[in-house]
Amino acid sequence: MAPIDIPTTRKECEALDRADPLRRARDQFELPEGLIYLDGHSLGPPNHEALRRIEHAAKSGWAEGLIRSWNSEGWIDLPLAVGAKLARLIGAQPEEVVVTDSVSVNLFKLASAARKLTGTDFVAVEETEFPTDQYIAQGMGAWMRVRSGEALEAIADVPTTLIKSVVNYRTSEIVDIAEYERAAAKAGSAIIWDLSHATGILDLDLPAAGAKLAAGCTYKFVNGGPGAPAFVYVSNAIANKLRSPIAGWFGHAAPFAFDSEYRPRPNAARFAAGTPPIFSLCALDGALEAFKGVSLSELQAKARALGDLCIARANQVGLVSISPADSARRGGHVSLVHAEGYAIVQALILRRVIPDFRAPDAMRFGFSPLYVRFTDVWDAMDQLADVLQTQAWDRAEFKRRAAVT
Amino acid sequence: MAPIDIPTTRKECEALDRADPLRRARDQFELPEGLIYLDGHSLGPPNHEALRRIEHAAKSGWAEGLIRSWNSEGWIDLPLAVGAKLARLIGAQPEEVVVTDSVSVNLFKLASAARKLTGTDFVAVEETEFPTDQYIAQGMGAWMRVRSGEALEAIADVPTTLIKSVVNYRTSEIVDIAEYERAAAKAGSAIIWDLSHATGILDLDLPAAGAKLAAGCTYKFVNGGPGAPAFVYVSNAIANKLRSPIAGWFGHAAPFAFDSEYRPRPNAARFAAGTPPIFSLCALDGALEAFKGVSLSELQAKARALGDLCIARANQVGLVSISPADSARRGGHVSLVHAEGYAIVQALILRRVIPDFRAPDAMRFGFSPLYVRFTDVWDAMDQLADVLQTQAWDRAEFKRRAAVT
Repeated sequence: MAPIDIPTTRKECEALDRADPLRRARDQFELPEGLIYLDGHSLGPPNHEALRRIEHAAKSGWAEGLIRSWNSEGWIDLPLAVGAKLARLIGAQPEEVVVTDSVSVNLFKLASAARKLTGTDFVAVEETEFPTDQYIAQGMGAWMRVRSGEALEAIADVPTTLIKSVVNYRTSEIVDIAEYERAAAKAGSAIIWDLSHATGILDLDLPAAGAKLAAGCTYKFVNGGPGAPAFVYVSNAIANKLRSPIAGWFGHAAPFAFDSEYRPRPNAARFAAGTPPIFSLCALDGALEAFKGVSLSELQAKARALGDLCIARANQVGLVSISPADSARRGGHVSLVHAEGYAIVQALILRRVIPDFRAPDAMRFGFSPLYVRFTDVWDAMDQLADVLQTQAWDRAEFKRRAAVT
Repeated sequence: MAPIDIPTTRKECEALDRADPLRRARDQFELPEGLIYLDGHSLGPPNHEALRRIEHAAKSGWAEGLIRSWNSEGWIDLPLAVGAKLARLIGAQPEEVVVTDSVSVNLFKLASAARKLTGTDFVAVEETEFPTDQYIAQGMGAWMRVRSGEALEAIADVPTTLIKSVVNYRTSEIVDIAEYERAAAKAGSAIIWDLSHATGILDLDLPAAGAKLAAGCTYKFVNGGPGAPAFVYVSNAIANKLRSPIAGWFGHAAPFAFDSEYRPRPNAARFAAGTPPIFSLCALDGALEAFKGVSLSELQAKARALGDLCIARANQVGLVSISPADSARRGGHVSLVHAEGYAIVQALILRRVIPDFRAPDAMRFGFSPLYVRFTDVWDAMDQLADVLQTQAWDRAEFKRRAAVT
């Protein structure tokens, strides 16, 4: 898709919204009236189908069907069925993805399994990586933290497993997956891609880029709901050589045969572990319906254009972006830095514009193309300009820090 | 509590139901009209509060509150808040329990952490243990499978971590926790108790019995819903010496400080890992309301009496129970064996009596005292007797095996 020119007036934004091939997608979402929600990179909103599926699973599946619903409602097959739907968003084959556990647990399983590929216990992670990725590596023993930008050298040296985000949570910078995979292949290293901030916003093709292992969350741009179960991607080329360290019964070839011997399922399914949380899994299944028929290249092109608009207008009011100006190198969010970022975000929330904040100074604005319009970004940036101009953020109630923002 | 005499007529059952101190609890549950549900050892039914909490979390929490609900709805605190409610059911202190992940993942985390206590990598599990417990041990490397009843010898020999169910999933036999803990203490061994079939049915006091580590599911007698998140119990006496191998951000002392160094939370909370599935966690929180004010000794006494009644009537029709006749040695379900058990269970389900089946021959009848009445057991056993007498099970449609029963 050709890039979209940055609009310079609200009228031009309106025209872009009218011409937007994704404009119908917004109708599927439940969004509070008058709220501009730019936090889809943290928790996406529900579509109608996700809410319908939760209610059905509770009232019809659980209360009426009881134990029978594991079969009659297809609950038992959901980890693979939902995985197959997700697979399209990352360019994978249906059986290369299973929905299971959290990102933390999945990174652990994959990093443990990857020792079979590297022949070493070494795990590397960058100092700018999302904290849970760093913690998982630390918890594994033979880990090293490398300086930002030095991961390529780390994996070229000794065979090492690198845990690396495709989109950095703070800067939104995208990494060139193929370049890293080429370096890893040369040295016998392995890379576990964290797709948390990438899935549902980028036009990903993991197999084409040579990626073999990945995990990601589904509650950001995939809109699966709070704490929605995460996923594991394992390339069919290597899956059957690997073993999950957590050999739970949902990863067994025949979980209800009650065999004494563990026989892992074929492909990525072997990375499933325990019984999955059905309400959260059904919500995710419903959320994925919003992506049906959506072109990933259109999705990515719109996300880039919305981010370009945000950066252009932020620059006008003197705000510095730490996200790449080149939209081809940027994910679905833009980070603007300001020493009073926390208070500014609070002032925006009071005006019904919702970004989020990451310590110490980053205000993150997320642009999910399924429901964010060009006019939303325009209006949000109007509010941001006004908050800065009037110093509206400089009030005591905005300056208290909460546990989560 | 004094044991309840086994009723010998339906009239006596009616009298026991009228005198039952737990009789009001049933009103809180959503149960299909005319169904006798004896599968609470597999998937408990919803109470009204669980269904209300799911709906609230979806419509109010997610759709309206969006990201703000992590604070305003208290989602961020749920793993510990729900853990604190669960703690009472096993006799633990509130901070000794955290709700997180699945039983499979939790057994793995605890068995890995227990190496610090034993000083060895040895993990033992009995051949009659629930399959996922066996698989987790197998996945860990230095494991051994011991013959049923020989676990005491295994842990007395070399310092070993034993994974052991308090209530066996197949026979319902209860183990003497204190006896095992004394043997373990002598040899420097550690025991991880699987409380899946025990929580919400037994009057447990883990600290009094010397138990230090346990995990359990919450979708059986706790009625938390399909795939409800599991829990971890770690005694305060040892918790801060242990480390989870999966160092996820929810186990960090300050998850939103985005520190680079992993600092585990105090107590059992350090065994949390990734972002929890909120809808399933809210359902569990609501489910626990049904236990408010319920005496665990009354709960246990009624479960024993219901099981006694089942066994007495099964014996009359010549069915063999593989569950202990002594109710003090039995959990909340009774297993009756029959070569055609699968078909008999199917015939009962058609008559709106729901037990379950475990290959190759065990029909399991579960007696959750919160909603099962003496008259329910009486009527179910009437149906069972009739199915056997008329050979109603001997029809082709009952003999097909499904994936889950």
